[in-house]
Amino acid sequence: MPARIQGQSPGKKRFAIALHGGAGRSADKMKADETKAVEASLGKALDIGTKVLDAGGKSLDAVEQVIRFLEDDPLFNAGRGAVFNAAGGHELDASIMDGRSKACGGVAAVRTVKNPISLARLVMEKTKHVLLTSDGAEQFADEMRVERVANSWFSTEKRRKELEKARQEAAAEGKQTRHGAPDPYYGTVGCVALDSQGNLAAGTSTGGLTNKKFGRVGDSPIVGAGTYADNATCAVSGTGIGEQFIRHAVAYDVSARMTYLKQPLKEAVHDVMHKTLRPDDGGLIAVGADGSIVMDYNTGGMARAAADPSGYREVKIGR
Amino acid sequence: MPARIQGQSPGKKRFAIALHGGAGRSADKMKADETKAVEASLGKALDIGTKVLDAGGKSLDAVEQVIRFLEDDPLFNAGRGAVFNAAGGHELDASIMDGRSKACGGVAAVRTVKNPISLARLVMEKTKHVLLTSDGAEQFADEMRVERVANSWFSTEKRRKELEKARQEAAAEGKQTRHGAPDPYYGTVGCVALDSQGNLAAGTSTGGLTNKKFGRVGDSPIVGAGTYADNATCAVSGTGIGEQFIRHAVAYDVSARMTYLKQPLKEAVHDVMHKTLRPDDGGLIAVGADGSIVMDYNTGGMARAAADPSGYREVKIGR
Repeated sequence: MPARIQGQSPGKKRFAIALHGGAGRSADKMKADETKAVEASLGKALDIGTKVLDAGGKSLDAVEQVIRFLEDDPLFNAGRGAVFNAAGGHELDASIMDGRSKACGGVAAVRTVKNPISLARLVMEKTKHVLLTSDGAEQFADEMRVERVANSWFSTEKRRKELEKARQEAAAEGKQTRHGAPDPYYGTVGCVALDSQGNLAAGTSTGGLTNKKFGRVGDSPIVGAGTYADNATCAVSGTGIGEQFIRHAVAYDVSARMTYLKQPLKEAVHDVMHKTLRPDDGGLIAVGADGSIVMDYNTGGMARAAADPSGYREVKIGR
Repeated sequence: MPARIQGQSPGKKRFAIALHGGAGRSADKMKADETKAVEASLGKALDIGTKVLDAGGKSLDAVEQVIRFLEDDPLFNAGRGAVFNAAGGHELDASIMDGRSKACGGVAAVRTVKNPISLARLVMEKTKHVLLTSDGAEQFADEMRVERVANSWFSTEKRRKELEKARQEAAAEGKQTRHGAPDPYYGTVGCVALDSQGNLAAGTSTGGLTNKKFGRVGDSPIVGAGTYADNATCAVSGTGIGEQFIRHAVAYDVSARMTYLKQPLKEAVHDVMHKTLRPDDGGLIAVGADGSIVMDYNTGGMARAAADPSGYREVKIGR
């Protein structure tokens, strides 16, 4: 996939945005109405972010608003519609990073916070910490008075069936630790943006893996693994096997390759995706400090969308 | 500090080990008997690891055994002797990584596990996950039947006084988020080792920051931030302001600098410690694939020890 580098026409606002709704199945294995619904939602999310940026708003605000929208949409594995863990409940992870200051915040294993991405932003802005987990994150949510819901609010029938299927498969194989389907779909959501001030931001939010062990933390709440932003290089958000993204410090590695190897964004993302990671590990979206947009994956497809002021606008799942 | 590169005499076993008991105060600000006790304990820990390696044992075993010893010693802020969090209890974090396979495991915010480093190793070896947190990690500890203790078992009088002091200072300043003393001491423990098979391993364990927010996770359980090992480059363990180590993916960055910039280990550690991080952020210990040993810090001192089969043996706190 070619990197998009927008024309730098002086009269035009310079911004760029990309978002994902998870990597996994190719579009041809999805039902037509599901494909249509996912694409429609990605398009709406893209419009929300584009509107913020086109009005001269902050990349951090665009990222947060886009992810809140995707969290609220039950189509994606984040917020409402999150997968079930092995204990039959939902534990949500999210993180956000400001490329200007490298300030960042994350929450892991939260259970009653309607929009984990907004709590992650509060960790970044209102504490000296960068990661709060579980009951401690819930207590912080009390202090911040963010919107709360019962854990069952995140439940959907589709995800319950996925859990049942995963449990049956696990039982059939006598393995307790099997996750997801043979044709995996990681419905994590994320957004990266460059604003007209030249500031980059990245954010990621997820329900994790179906049938995951209670208390399992993936890459999404971890800055350096699932999320990274540095005004000098790029903003990155990942989706896939979180364990692989942590082990290889994937989101940071894209930035490190640009800094140390002077790789262009497209090449840095490509090498991480296709040389470091294994087939079916997941996908990445990234925006460079120059406004370039890269979306790449080593799975069958990735629900994704991107736009810039040149008129470029893309909403896609397959190749 | 010069990097130690041992002589490669063919008859001799090739191994290297380094460990730390936290960065912070310079030795001249410690009482003489405290200095003596810390040095004696570091020496014992070093002997435990050296014995494993000299007998041809695995670097992973050396790292685990050294850290278990330091966790059990109330002098250090890990296991027994861990600092108190803002809720007046203890939450422990640890991680371990195998440089051969890049397998890794971590636990965050555990409360009743006597030796968090051993639970981290079980996450690595017995699950498909790399990080378990809080109640989920406790449940995994139940399954694995590791040794358990009451949370109060970790408490020591010295740490209770530190919490009281931190609370008083926080109250005086009207800030809820102030941590530690003006002369900080991060008593995190860690160990890195190269064994005679050429395999690197790294591990880190901590009680975190005094008066930390309930549920706060630092860098110690996070592979890439506080711990990293890759047979192609080095094994690294950090101590200090965890938020800084996460934000800059510090442990992975040492390895990335060696891979991408071809920096020698000493230079990679130096640049991360003195260019990326700020004064008083903490310290790092590292062992290279070539057996070189580097221990560096930007604080007043770092409790540390290292040895290799050339006869080199060092136990120190100050410069």
